[in-house]
Amino acid sequence: MVAVLHEKIADSLREQIRRGELPVGAELPSESQLCEQWKASRGPVRQALAALRAEGVIAGGRGKPPVVRSASIGQPFDTLLSYSAWARSIGRTPGQRTLELALRRADAHAASVLHVEEGSPVVQVLRLRYLDGAPTMLERTTFVEHVGRRLFDFDCDSGSVWSYLLSQGVRFATASHVIDAVPADGTDSLHLGVPEGAPLLRQQRTARGPDGEALEYHDDRYLPGIVSFTLENTFDARCALSRTATP
Amino acid sequence: MVAVLHEKIADSLREQIRRGELPVGAELPSESQLCEQWKASRGPVRQALAALRAEGVIAGGRGKPPVVRSASIGQPFDTLLSYSAWARSIGRTPGQRTLELALRRADAHAASVLHVEEGSPVVQVLRLRYLDGAPTMLERTTFVEHVGRRLFDFDCDSGSVWSYLLSQGVRFATASHVIDAVPADGTDSLHLGVPEGAPLLRQQRTARGPDGEALEYHDDRYLPGIVSFTLENTFDARCALSRTATP
Repeated sequence: MVAVLHEKIADSLREQIRRGELPVGAELPSESQLCEQWKASRGPVRQALAALRAEGVIAGGRGKPPVVRSASIGQPFDTLLSYSAWARSIGRTPGQRTLELALRRADAHAASVLHVEEGSPVVQVLRLRYLDGAPTMLERTTFVEHVGRRLFDFDCDSGSVWSYLLSQGVRFATASHVIDAVPADGTDSLHLGVPEGAPLLRQQRTARGPDGEALEYHDDRYLPGIVSFTLENTFDARCALSRTATP
Repeated sequence: MVAVLHEKIADSLREQIRRGELPVGAELPSESQLCEQWKASRGPVRQALAALRAEGVIAGGRGKPPVVRSASIGQPFDTLLSYSAWARSIGRTPGQRTLELALRRADAHAASVLHVEEGSPVVQVLRLRYLDGAPTMLERTTFVEHVGRRLFDFDCDSGSVWSYLLSQGVRFATASHVIDAVPADGTDSLHLGVPEGAPLLRQQRTARGPDGEALEYHDDRYLPGIVSFTLENTFDARCALSRTATP
């Protein structure tokens, strides 16, 4: 996908903010300066600034020059989804040990999260994930059959399932995430080495294709004290994260 | 704060998406139609669409008409911060019982999160929060002294501390959130009625004023199964939420 001009401008500003060349409180270049620098008209410059404003990264700009409000730049789509990509993005070494790769009939829960019929075939993978060699997370993934079958030709111990599926032409477009805390069950206890009932941080997520079809569902359980989920928000921008009451 | 035109356009579209008048998959009105409807030039319309795109709510728009990608509209700033505002926004009844309101000297942790000197005075509040009468969360808040002192004239059992502080002219501009899972300690166990070591979902947050001064720090611990944090993201937009490795 070729980035269009307003995306290039926004990416360049994000990078300058991330690297601290534009620290929190700093004024951004004026619209005119950005237009000149990028040989751009006002339109793309304003679209780039609007994107940064919506992300909560900059503030101001109503007559006043926009200023950097937060150096916390959100992660790209795949960094939140791919454990391997995420680990490498923070300079750590990801690892995995596949405990189970199974083609089985969907139980009620798998059927419900993937919107398939109960009893229809799904592929389930259970992997222990590592960070710099230390166990970090137990990953339970359920794939719809036509996606999951591709894994029977792949060594799940060799690296990122996510990257492999992308290389196979599987396209992910959107994802839903639910973050909560759960007590370790027998399987968690066995593989993560904590007592049953111990607290784990859970990220459930469902990734969907461009047509909205649910392709995979994750239930990832992290040992406490290793990973957290963080967010910056500002008074000017809506917050992407919602506090949700469990039904 | 008077909303400028591009914000009005964006808010109106968000509202139509939230109400399902523009369901997921639906095409938005074209730029020309929006210009005509709002008696606006292309600029504000494009800024509004760029904001929705950055939020992951719409997709497309490079030559193609933008379509609704997600009906999950982020919550306004104060809904993620104020427990009372959040509870009411989902039609539930918030409640609270103040267990302690104390002026004391900042320990190392309080000093570090509020960027004040260790030993300087801070105000700490411990409250048990309810949803429809059932205990839900134990809230530990630490305020810088000049903000916290205002609470000595307020009945913390009567409702939203957040609303009270706003009414007193305290201005919050940005906030950082860290979400993780922790084992219940003795205080949690006593007030939430769970065994020590039981899993709790924790939201830590620091709210800052317009000049960046940290004004309050929360450590909110939820009983499991009651609340989760949810997010939708899309391939087109950066994700505001980051997975973070604990140092």
